[in-house]
This record gives sequence, structure tokens and C-alpha cells, in this order.
Amino acid sequence: MSNGRKVVLVGCGAVGTSFVYSAINQGIASHYVLIDVVNDIAEGNAMDLSDSHAVLPSPFSSIKAGTYSDCADADVIVITAGRPQKPGETRLEMVADNAKIMKSIALEIKKSGFNGITVIASNPVDILTHVYQEVTGYESNRVISSGTTLDSSRLRKLLGERLNVAPRSVKAYLIGEHGDSSVAVWSRSIVMGKSILEYVEEGAITIDELQQVKDDATNMAYKIIEKKRATFYGIGACLARIVKSILNDEKSSLMVGALLKGQYGVENVYISVPCIVGAHGIEEIIEWRLSEEELQGLRKSCTQLSEVFKTAQAAIK
Amino acid sequence: MSNGRKVVLVGCGAVGTSFVYSAINQGIASHYVLIDVVNDIAEGNAMDLSDSHAVLPSPFSSIKAGTYSDCADADVIVITAGRPQKPGETRLEMVADNAKIMKSIALEIKKSGFNGITVIASNPVDILTHVYQEVTGYESNRVISSGTTLDSSRLRKLLGERLNVAPRSVKAYLIGEHGDSSVAVWSRSIVMGKSILEYVEEGAITIDELQQVKDDATNMAYKIIEKKRATFYGIGACLARIVKSILNDEKSSLMVGALLKGQYGVENVYISVPCIVGAHGIEEIIEWRLSEEELQGLRKSCTQLSEVFKTAQAAIK
Amino acid sequence: MSNGRKVVLVGCGAVGTSFVYSAINQGIASHYVLIDVVNDIAEGNAMDLSDSHAVLPSPFSSIKAGTYSDCADADVIVITAGRPQKPGETRLEMVADNAKIMKSIALEIKKSGFNGITVIASNPVDILTHVYQEVTGYESNRVISSGTTLDSSRLRKLLGERLNVAPRSVKAYLIGEHGDSSVAVWSRSIVMGKSILEYVEEGAITIDELQQVKDDATNMAYKIIEKKRATFYGIGACLARIVKSILNDEKSSLMVGALLKGQYGVENVYISVPCIVGAHGIEEIIEWRLSEEELQGLRKSCTQLSEVFKTAQAAIK
Amino acid sequence: MSNGRKVVLVGCGAVGTSFVYSAINQGIASHYVLIDVVNDIAEGNAMDLSDSHAVLPSPFSSIKAGTYSDCADADVIVITAGRPQKPGETRLEMVADNAKIMKSIALEIKKSGFNGITVIASNPVDILTHVYQEVTGYESNRVISSGTTLDSSRLRKLLGERLNVAPRSVKAYLIGEHGDSSVAVWSRSIVMGKSILEYVEEGAITIDELQQVKDDATNMAYKIIEKKRATFYGIGACLARIVKSILNDEKSSLMVGALLKGQYGVENVYISVPCIVGAHGIEEIIEWRLSEEELQGLRKSCTQLSEVFKTAQAAIK
Repeated sequence: MSNGRKVVLVGCGAVGTSFVYSAINQGIASHYVLIDVVNDIAEGNAMDLSDSHAVLPSPFSSIKAGTYSDCADADVIVITAGRPQKPGETRLEMVADNAKIMKSIALEIKKSGFNGITVIASNPVDILTHVYQEVTGYESNRVISSGTTLDSSRLRKLLGERLNVAPRSVKAYLIGEHGDSSVAVWSRSIVMGKSILEYVEEGAITIDELQQVKDDATNMAYKIIEKKRATFYGIGACLARIVKSILNDEKSSLMVGALLKGQYGVENVYISVPCIVGAHGIEEIIEWRLSEEELQGLRKSCTQLSEVFKTAQAAIK
Repeated sequence: MSNGRKVVLVGCGAVGTSFVYSAINQGIASHYVLIDVVNDIAEGNAMDLSDSHAVLPSPFSSIKAGTYSDCADADVIVITAGRPQKPGETRLEMVADNAKIMKSIALEIKKSGFNGITVIASNPVDILTHVYQEVTGYESNRVISSGTTLDSSRLRKLLGERLNVAPRSVKAYLIGEHGDSSVAVWSRSIVMGKSILEYVEEGAITIDELQQVKDDATNMAYKIIEKKRATFYGIGACLARIVKSILNDEKSSLMVGALLKGQYGVENVYISVPCIVGAHGIEEIIEWRLSEEELQGLRKSCTQLSEVFKTAQAAIK
Repeated sequence: MSNGRKVVLVGCGAVGTSFVYSAINQGIASHYVLIDVVNDIAEGNAMDLSDSHAVLPSPFSSIKAGTYSDCADADVIVITAGRPQKPGETRLEMVADNAKIMKSIALEIKKSGFNGITVIASNPVDILTHVYQEVTGYESNRVISSGTTLDSSRLRKLLGERLNVAPRSVKAYLIGEHGDSSVAVWSRSIVMGKSILEYVEEGAITIDELQQVKDDATNMAYKIIEKKRATFYGIGACLARIVKSILNDEKSSLMVGALLKGQYGVENVYISVPCIVGAHGIEEIIEWRLSEEELQGLRKSCTQLSEVFKTAQAAIK
Repeated sequence: MSNGRKVVLVGCGAVGTSFVYSAINQGIASHYVLIDVVNDIAEGNAMDLSDSHAVLPSPFSSIKAGTYSDCADADVIVITAGRPQKPGETRLEMVADNAKIMKSIALEIKKSGFNGITVIASNPVDILTHVYQEVTGYESNRVISSGTTLDSSRLRKLLGERLNVAPRSVKAYLIGEHGDSSVAVWSRSIVMGKSILEYVEEGAITIDELQQVKDDATNMAYKIIEKKRATFYGIGACLARIVKSILNDEKSSLMVGALLKGQYGVENVYISVPCIVGAHGIEEIIEWRLSEEELQGLRKSCTQLSEVFKTAQAAIK
């Protein structure tokens, strides 16, 4: 018997609470529990979010600040906890610290007896997702990195603008690392049912311009941060999209980070590739036939992630 | 012929952008234009918000930073611009400054040829809404203060918690000023179809406890600010609720700030009372028969607002 | 772990399939199974309904024709099976036949190991719900009659039209039997926050006119049947409303048929009264203080139902 | 200023009213007017549909039976009126009769001063849409045939079932006539981001099996009619999808019937091809590069439709 779908958020910064706000506006779940290392932040946000109760179209049943024991009967846990890179420190120092934070969260969740699906957006996202999966020992299909969901959404928007076409008519994908080494899969990009390569042939856009669009998508986060100091609405909606696909057993294809076990010739790396997402988490990893260049890009992305992951593993020993 | 519903936001702080985020997650309008005195803030938020395009259930058509000329064919304008009280300054100094800001916004909007409905959440909300209505000369039904929508939502939540009843089964209302002098209309409060006064008779709650619940609702903003420094999710969803009722011509009853013209024995004061909200804005001001105490509370609230409004009027002469 | 919410429909006539159509348009559940004594009807409707898959905003995961074994892991079962009164037969003969049908359905469902909530709309609805609950032995909170949800919705609409007020601003309730002996609870009816009795005092409507509105609500089914031979859209949406409140653990107050155990001075009768509906079915039966006339009406309604129920019990021995 | 979006339905059979039911469950418009040659049918359905008012998540403002004068300020008109083929009559006799019916409807709508978008589902749909467009003289972008929206939705579902993949991960299209001569565009069909032709190469499906899937999609209507005598839920949801894209100015790509003016080498034929649908109706006709076989299929479909259209034109002279 259903008791209403329950979601736990760990990490109540702007990203995490934007996710919950997106979710309650869409009516995705019934019960939300907020956990933060600073309990006041969890409590303040639970109050602010639940103030919307009477005015939403499909109201939730409860939002409250809680503890890890609330994970026991949760359907989905979303983790956005972590700290940003500090001025003067190296990226690897930041990774080491966040890996320790993720380990401690993973142990707490494991202890609760949680039996559902975990979605992680803490950065560096594929590294920390892998740390979480190793520490908990959960089956890898039950542990999902938000990966390049957002990057792909950005690529679609920018490509649409460049071709003067509505973003919804654009299918375009970034795979690989959520970050600079991501790879645009032009061989799979479709604009209004036409391959982007046809647009290139027709002279509507050049290969160089496509590369520019890809770079703009990858740099969008920096651009937004420059203008408003942080990004959170886009990623919040992406998390809601992933969680909805799980809770509704949608079996949608999403561009999320999954643990590769031989697919694309890669072993034991968490990285974004197209996946079917449903009630069991990642229900299938889709293997696209990539161009040689795309495949090399993906593998290069994997090699880089593997290196960083070793740093993370060393840090939490 | 419809060109898709268009909403302009003036003021891109956390309240304003939370409203847009709520609206796009619910699929309320098609086109959004963001205006801010700091254009980078408008642009950064337009980027961050529109990144969600590909992952929302009912996607919008466009979100962009714009200028007041975009108001010309808008259906609804939402104004959240203004500045908070500074340490060391009096409340009246803050009112005077924000009245000047509101006047300049009103003149720009008027100049655009805007012909729709305006919803205002800038504080002090009833004062600034009145300023806007006077400066533009728009019919008062077309100018709405967000008023005590949020306060009433909070009262429902807290009363539900106190009686161990889901907030959705609680109908309770705060009228008057959005702030300390608001009045709880217990004579109209219904919990699961039963008058709250029956609960008092049955001993389930005392009059003193009701007063405490009211005080807690009024102080909720302070409590949230203490914990997370600002409140924006609740009010954002309330603004989405009001705008939805306008765009869909819902004719819902909402607790919004309207210009009284004799109702409740009050002349020429913007204050929250129950209103029917639809395509023409405030389509009807509902006159409840209040208890003597409630009526006196409302009138006292009006007298206070009238005084502050004079300060605002003086400031913009 | 959630496997997506699963709903089984038993009885694929216009009422049952309208319910599923309403549910998939609202995105209420993930998996739907259709059962009908004529399997072709279940299959044809599963095909027609699932054709909408690609064009709905929140698509379902599956719709298929099935068997009672599909009930084992269902969250909610909705039963609309039954046959209408034939020309020339008495109402009691119809009751006896439908009670037998309901008994056989109940036994099949029981056998499946079903552990969720059942919502029944087969007529006479309170009688057949009681039969189902007795045969299965399920706790009565887990067995819900659609009761006067629809009758109350009709009353709200007609009262709104009579007072020139939007139905959404009208709270009005019919309790008791889903049918002629239902009772309008005027003492609890609120129009735009004002008691309907205030409207009577002010001369906006007379007691006789209220009675006419009540009669029109009760007779609405006959009027629609006269014009289009059947009614199904209204009841379909009411069933979706009840099921949504269960699946989302909404704890909404709805006017559904529940087994009274002393409430309102009534023992062992299924009849409509205000109830809190959530993940556990009927989570609370609300006891309103009724006027003497309303209470007598409700008890008379109960007495009538008790008599008919004896006929049903006799038929299935 | 928006007055809430208004939709008029002409023809209140199961298809038309299923469309309205889908639309109100999704909250697509505010005002609905039902017109039928048998006024009782329009009135009965308006009653039955509006009974759902109080229980829907995003309630409409009004549903009523009306007359053609209600078209004057409508945003969208949906026409489903027409009569089925009678036993013993030829298909051409049916076409002639329905063309006369469509002409009379077109003249009434024209007279009302209607200035919005018309969506037509009356069969034979492309023929009758062309008749309507000629009689009214409306710009062809403002007159849309529901075309192969439903056929394409069916193809996606069946292809997904065949490949054991969720329909939402399948992009597949039928263009041309809504009916037997429609053409499956395999060169554009994508399953989980992979071309269907890759699946063929990998041996997951054969060309013959693809042809079978296409035939099954085309014959689905007959199969459903055999089982439940009529089909209406699928097409109702497709009409809601098209109308939503117009009212929300979505600019979605949909497979609808448009008047070709040279595209695909075809002149002056209403036929289904991929189109961008927004506030101005068909905002762009997308020209796919088709395989030779697909192109020939499309042109053959056009030739057949042209012949039938001449019959229709002759009938209404």
C-alpha cells in the first residue's frame, strides 16, 4: 500500500531548496523531509516552502526538517550537500573535503535502512556519486548522478536560439563529465526531426558555430554566476525531472550519470550517458553508436574522472 | 486571438524570481519578461530560469530580460521591486524611498501603453500599491496588492498543526494590513467544515491559544528570516496563485489588497479583504458581516495605513 | 521502494473509462489495469486510452487489460461494474443481482492478496460498498463509497448559478444516500465565506429556493440522462479526485460513503458524511453538529439504506 | 487584456466531448462553449462535463451549450461534427454529405466574425479541413487538420511494444493521409536516440516487421471499433494536445494536416507533415528530406486526396 511518495533532501542550499520548490509546484511527491548540517537552514526552508501549501494546485501532505532516521521509508533521497571551491585552494583539495562529507552522509543513510533510489547533484557530481555508491554498497542502478541533464538542456536552448527554432523542437545531447570535458553528440542531434548534420550541409550552421554553441552551453554556468553569483533554478528543475521519472516509473530517457560496466568500452566510471530512468532507478544504459571523435571524447572524459576519483578514494580511506 | 499569455516581472530579487519559478513549474503563462534596475540580475535569472525549459511538464515559450516597452502587450505585470529597511533608518524613511521607486516604475509602465492587470508585492505592500494606482490612474480593480494571501496561508497551516488537522481542511483568514495590525477573522474560520468557535466550545482550543496561533502567523516572517535571512518561496507561490486566477479567469476568492470605496465603512484605503479575482482583476469585493471586534480591528488597521500613505504621497509630490 | 502507483479498474463502461481518462490526463498514477466481464471491452478501452500516451503532459507508464491477479500489488482498485435497472423489474430485483455481481468481484479481489484501498461507484453505491466490505472482511477505512461527492459538486454548481457566484466560491454539501434521500447541510454551506443563512436573511435567496436548488442537484442525473442517455464525465472526475487524495496521501476532506460506527448516532450503515481521505483510505470521519432537521434527514436516509442492505445480504447468502 | 482562453466545440459526439474532458482535466482553457445540431446533446454534455468543476485541479471558468454567435471572441474552434459512413452507401456519398455539413458550419462561423484558429477532426479530415478553409477564406495557417497526430502516437506505442521500449523513448512518424495511404517515415524514426535503421542493421527488427507495425498502427482504429464500437479517447487527447500548443504559443512540432503550397513538391493539398504549432496556428511547415520511397508514398497519398477533394468541391457548389 502506498503511503504517499516520500522524498528526503540532504543539503538545503539554493540548489536543494529550488528542487523542492520545483517538486511541490509540480505536485511530484507527498512528503518532504529537509536535512542540513545547519538545522536552522533546514527548518527555515521547511517553513518558507510549506507556507505555499494553501495556494498550490496539487498540494503536498507535509514538509518538515528532519534527521537521517527519516530516510528509512523514503522512496527517493536527493543529495545536494557539499561546499564550493575556496579561493586559494586547489580543486583537488575541494574534492577531498567533499568526498569526506559525502562519505559521512552515505554512512548515515546506510544506517537508516534506506531502500530506495538516491539522486546526487553535489559537485564534482560523478565523483561524489561514485563515492556514495561505494560507501553504501548499493546496487549502482539505485544511485544516480544528475550528470549532464542540465548541460543538455542548455545545449538544446542555445542551439534553438542559434537556428531560430523553439528549444522544444531541438534534441541535442552532452555526454561525459558534467563540466568542461563533456562531449556534444552531434551525430544524434535532431532539430525539428532533421539531423543537425543536414543543417550543416544546407549551410544553415557551420561546424565551427556548432563548437561555439557547445562551448557556450558548457560555459553557461560561469556566465550565470558572473551575473547573479550562483545557479540553482535550472538544476533544481532537472532534479525534479529525474525524481518524477523515478516516482512515476516513467522509464524516460534522460542524460544522467551511471556506473559504466563495459558500455562504451569503459569500466567502473560514473559518467553521463543516455539512460532509461524508472522506479528501479537506472533501468537501462543505452549504448549509442558514436562517431570516432565522440567516442574518443567520452573516453578522455572518463580517464580524467578516474584520476580525480582516485584522489577522492584516497581522501576517505 | 491569443498570442500566449505574457507576464512581466519588475524586480528580480528572490521574491520575484521565485514567483517566475513557481509559474513556469505550474505552466501558468507562455512568455515572461524580467526587468531589473541591475540588468545583469535580470539577464542572469532569465538564463537560469530558462535552463529548465527542456525538463518542465508544460514548458513556457520564452523567458528573457527586457525593458518597460515589453509591458505594452503584457497580460499581467508583477512588481516586487523595492529596498529593505536599512539599519539605523526609520520605517518612514524607507517608505518614502520605496514610494519614489514605485512612482518611477509606475510612470514607465504607464508610458508603455500597458492595458492589463498589475499585481504588487513590494513592501509596504498596500501603501505602494496605492501609490502605483494613483500615479498610473488605472481603474482600481486592475491594481492588486498581494496583501494577506501569504498571512492567511500561514494561519491555515499553523491552525492545522495546532488541531492536528491537515492545513487543506482549514479555512482561516487574516484581513487588514499585511503585517502586525492584521486581523484574524475567527467568526469565518472553518476547520473540516466546523466553525472554529465550535472547537472552542468543545474545549479543543482556547481563545488565548487562537490568539497565539494568530501571533505566530504574523511573526512567521521574522522567524524564517532569523533562520534563513529571507523569505521568498511562500510569497512566490502566492503571487503565482493570484496571477493564475487572473490569466485563467478563475473568479476565485482570494485574500488580496483592494481599494475600498465604502465597503466595511472604509473610504480610499488599499487593504486586504476577501475578493473575487478573475480576468478583470478584482471583480468583486466581498463584504463579510464581521464581529464588532473584527470590524474595529480592520478599521484600526486602515487608519494606520492611511497615515503611512500620507507619508508616501508627500514623498512623491 | 515505489514501483509507480498502480490502479486497477473493475468495470469498463463509460463511468469506469471516464475515470481512467480523467486520471491519465491529470497524471495521477503510473500503471492502470482494466478488467471487464467482456474482455474485448477491457482490451478495446486499454487500446483507445493508451493511444493518448504520446500527447499527455505527464504520461502514464502502462495501460493494459488484465485479470484479478493484477490486484495483488495494486495501490487502489476502483469498481464501477454492475448493471442498470431493467424495464419492468423492481429496484430490489436490481439490487439483488448487483449484490451477487459485487460478491463475486469481492471474492476474486480477496483471493489476489490485494492490500490497498478500494473505491466503489457501482449503484446503489452505499449498499454495494457495504456488501464488498462484508465479503472481503477488509477494515472499513480501506473501503470507500464514492457517495455524494458528485451530488455535492452539483449542489455547489447550481447554488453558484442561482446566486451569480462562481461555483468555486461555494462550499455546499449533500450528505446521506447518493440519491433521493440525500440531505443538504445548509447549516454548513458557505458562499464566498458567508453562511448561506446570511444570504437568506438578506433576502438574496429564500428557503423555498434553496429547496429547489437541492431538488435540482438530486435530479441532475435524470436531467442529463434525458438529454444524453447517460452520465459519466462528472462521476469519472469525482473518482479521480478520491483516488488522487489516496495516492498522494492528501488528507483532503471529501464527501464520501463510510461505514458509520456510532457517529451521528448511527451504527453499521455505509453512508456519505464528511471524511478525511489519505493513504490509509478514510482516515477520519468528521462529526458535524447538524441542525435537528438535518440530523433527522440523515437518520431517515440511514434507515432506508439499512432496509435495502438487508435485501442485498439475503441475496448473497 | 486576456479574458481567459475560450474554446468552442462544434459537434458533441464522443470525440468532441472526450476532447473537452481531456482539456478540462489538464486545465487548458477557461471557457468552453458546446454546439451541436441536436441542442439537447450539447446541453446534456455541458451539464455532465461541468459537474466535474469542484473536483478538478485547475478548474475552468464555464462550460455551456451555445450558438455560433459564441464564436465571435473564441480563441480556438474545434470541429468534430459529421456523420459516419452508412451501410450500403459509397464512401464518396458520405464525403459529399459531410462536405455539405462542413460548408454550413463554415458559413456560420465566418458570419460570427471569428478571428482565431480552427482545428478540425471530422472525417475524412484533410478533405473537410480543405473545404472549411476554402469556404471561410481564412489564411491556411489558421485552419488545422488533426491529421496523423493520432496515427503517429499509435505508431510510437506499437513500435515501443515491439522493441520492448517505453513509447516515450520512441520517436516515429506517420505522414500523409489520416488513413490507409499514410506513410511511415522510417528514415526519421528514433528509438532511445538511435535510428530505427540501426535496429534493423543490428537485427533487432526486420523491414517486414516494421511494415507490420505500420499496418497495425493504421488498422488500430478498426481493431478498437471491433472491440468497443468506436474510438474517441485517443483522438480527444490529440485534439487537446494541438489546442494546448496554440493557446500556450508552444511552437511544438506536431504531425498535423496543413495546406501544402509547394512543400514536398505538392501544391494545394491539405495533408499531414511535420509542423510548428503556436499562437498563429501552423507557424511553419517543416520540410524533411525524405527517402525516395517515402516521397513517392506521400505524393501518392496527395493524389488520392486531391481526387476525393474534387468530389467534395462538386458537392458543395
